[in-house]
Amino acid sequence: MKHLLLALVALAAPASAQDAAEQPTTASIVAAAPASDWRAIDPADMLVMTLAPDRDGKARQVVIQLMPPPFSQGWVGNIRILAKARWWDGTSVYRVVDNWVAQWGDGEDDEAKAKPLPEGAKSPQASYETLIPDPDANASDLELFTRRIYREDPYSNGLLFFEGFPIAYWETIGEVSYEDAEGKPLPNPLEGREFAWPIHCYGSVGVARDLSPDTGTGAELYAVIGHAPRQLDRNIAVVGRVIEGIEHLSTLPRGKGDAGVYDDPKLRVPIVSVRLGDELSEAERPRFEYLASDSASFARYVEVRANRHDAFYKVSAGGVDVCNVQVPIRRVPSE
Amino acid sequence: MKHLLLALVALAAPASAQDAAEQPTTASIVAAAPASDWRAIDPADMLVMTLAPDRDGKARQVVIQLMPPPFSQGWVGNIRILAKARWWDGTSVYRVVDNWVAQWGDGEDDEAKAKPLPEGAKSPQASYETLIPDPDANASDLELFTRRIYREDPYSNGLLFFEGFPIAYWETIGEVSYEDAEGKPLPNPLEGREFAWPIHCYGSVGVARDLSPDTGTGAELYAVIGHAPRQLDRNIAVVGRVIEGIEHLSTLPRGKGDAGVYDDPKLRVPIVSVRLGDELSEAERPRFEYLASDSASFARYVEVRANRHDAFYKVSAGGVDVCNVQVPIRRVPSE
Repeated sequence: MKHLLLALVALAAPASAQDAAEQPTTASIVAAAPASDWRAIDPADMLVMTLAPDRDGKARQVVIQLMPPPFSQGWVGNIRILAKARWWDGTSVYRVVDNWVAQWGDGEDDEAKAKPLPEGAKSPQASYETLIPDPDANASDLELFTRRIYREDPYSNGLLFFEGFPIAYWETIGEVSYEDAEGKPLPNPLEGREFAWPIHCYGSVGVARDLSPDTGTGAELYAVIGHAPRQLDRNIAVVGRVIEGIEHLSTLPRGKGDAGVYDDPKLRVPIVSVRLGDELSEAERPRFEYLASDSASFARYVEVRANRHDAFYKVSAGGVDVCNVQVPIRRVPSE
Repeated sequence: MKHLLLALVALAAPASAQDAAEQPTTASIVAAAPASDWRAIDPADMLVMTLAPDRDGKARQVVIQLMPPPFSQGWVGNIRILAKARWWDGTSVYRVVDNWVAQWGDGEDDEAKAKPLPEGAKSPQASYETLIPDPDANASDLELFTRRIYREDPYSNGLLFFEGFPIAYWETIGEVSYEDAEGKPLPNPLEGREFAWPIHCYGSVGVARDLSPDTGTGAELYAVIGHAPRQLDRNIAVVGRVIEGIEHLSTLPRGKGDAGVYDDPKLRVPIVSVRLGDELSEAERPRFEYLASDSASFARYVEVRANRHDAFYKVSAGGVDVCNVQVPIRRVPSE
């Protein structure tokens, strides 16, 4: 009976343990990916945040990759202005909530006392979706995610990877009704068009805001340190992701004050500096690559993330949650 | 144009900000749930793990609720034997991997040196699924999860909550083929039947094992401290979940040795004791309740997790990932 169950759920499973041992793993695919399947991340598109050393005197550095155009660029623009103005230097990580976020910036609730923003940094108009007028025209960039998980996302009706970032989209398909205030059907002005937005996964960096959706500037940021809070998608600007050093945020003590803010100011973790990667010297400049999401290696990688047949896995799911894909990113040694 | 986008994605959105302020939140639903919608967790079904105090001398206690029958009971039985034998006392948390797990137990890789298990604790036969011969007969207990997310899970074809735990299942529907070794179609002996398994979410506790699926006993356990690793579902026994004190595991330093094991033995966090809740004195006994998954309050709670219209949310997703439901659990004050 056990054999029957196995056969039923693992239809594509290898015929023998011998085969299983030879099946590719995600690690073997990443290791075998040719250099041409990796893309360099421009240092100008990275933030390097240096925290005060920990209590054992160990250095703490967090590297963030900023979201590429066309997504969240109003906030990303502000973040560049803030970094160049040294705005975060001397601020802190002031809020940490388990299975939720670590948040940093000024952390001053009282507007009168808040640290003034540099010239040019204002709340962008709050639009968390990006309209893609002609998806086919963008097909080379906006390569489709595997068809296997297409329409299997509770938060959207489609998923793809764009320049290494997970993106969800909504297609204005026939069954989506469009009504006036009285509930009377109207012609759908977006028929066949799509709009898209970046996804909150573990490590994603977003713009904290107040209740009003136009209140976030990018000065107060957070990184996700728990299960993907996808309900925040389209409600908050996702502006990047932590690509190194997330443990310096995820291991911080959880805050005991309101909303997880540190009630004891001594618990705040001082931010020494935040710099754009290209502001640093050649020697300090971060060098990273991601596995290109339109490469053959990435397609194989996603395939195996969804269908694991290596020696450990007894059954494979046949699918993968978009935040479990985890785009491979690697540090490149300095020359 | 912005108004149009909004109308399109938030079809059920309230007509005004005034309405939004009056919409229930998950917190307001939980606060309003009558006592009859809460179920006490039997102290006999809890593990209380006391870690050595942290470096500031603060106590660290982790409370785990064990998986109810019929799921994973071979391992849960072992865990009861191990706790009663004081087997974990003097062992440690020895492996911590960011966005993955914190693992504890003996941690000895060399079988010859491994701490012997107490009498009766053996590897259960490895079957990570539970056959449910007649789902309709169990309908009162195995209440269906909201239809909204049904068939929108990349890891199963159905989801439900059973006694407060998220469960996935696979239905042997017509399109699932059943073949012999040569690929020839065979009659499906499980036609119309379902089998089900507990899900890995943030905080889930599972049984570490070696490559062979029958090697886990329950002596080496882990808790998930990152995005739900659903690919482990059906490959590892899920035996419970952390209901209090997960931060004592999730904030531990990440291991730098192979597979995230602490290379420096001094980093291991000593386990003072692990007790079943009913082994403790009345005063020490943990008292918790969960919001009953077959209650009206839980149905409302899930509805709002999927469709948020309170003052913060600009758009609501219209769906919710099963690991984002997060069953409400509360500590009950001692009498």
